[in-house]
Amino acid sequence: MKTENDRIIPIAPIDRLIRKANADRVSESAAKELGVILEQLGKEIANRAIDLAKHAKRTTVKDSDIKLAYKQWRR
Amino acid sequence: MKTENDRIIPIAPIDRLIRKANADRVSESAAKELGVILEQLGKEIANRAIDLAKHAKRTTVKDSDIKLAYKQWRR
Repeated sequence: MKTENDRIIPIAPIDRLIRKANADRVSESAAKELGVILEQLGKEIANRAIDLAKHAKRTTVKDSDIKLAYKQWRR
Repeated sequence: MKTENDRIIPIAPIDRLIRKANADRVSESAAKELGVILEQLGKEIANRAIDLAKHAKRTTVKDSDIKLAYKQWRR
């Protein structure tokens, strides 16, 4: 189960992101929920990027790995 | 064009997220790239959530809006 301590991305910028999309008001639980979702999506893309870096015989994940991972993840 | 100042989510937690997925090393540009992607995805989901809140005649975006927005976005 996800607990408060497992969260990596802070809530404040997520709240700002929703407000910037033109929300009048944003509940704290809404910002938390989107934070959990973005971390999950980030993890999925990161896992693909790590596989791609290994495939290219590198130990460093580069932006080209992230870009291709996202392209393949998004389809 | 996206500039440094447009970014809302800080880079450090994104870097940590990639490392947590078991990357040996992560280039700074890789973390920045994933940050830009997650902000874009966050914006897409937030826009849907705002539409759903309006549809329910609310001005506050709630976690139920985010959850349904994500479900519909993900398909």
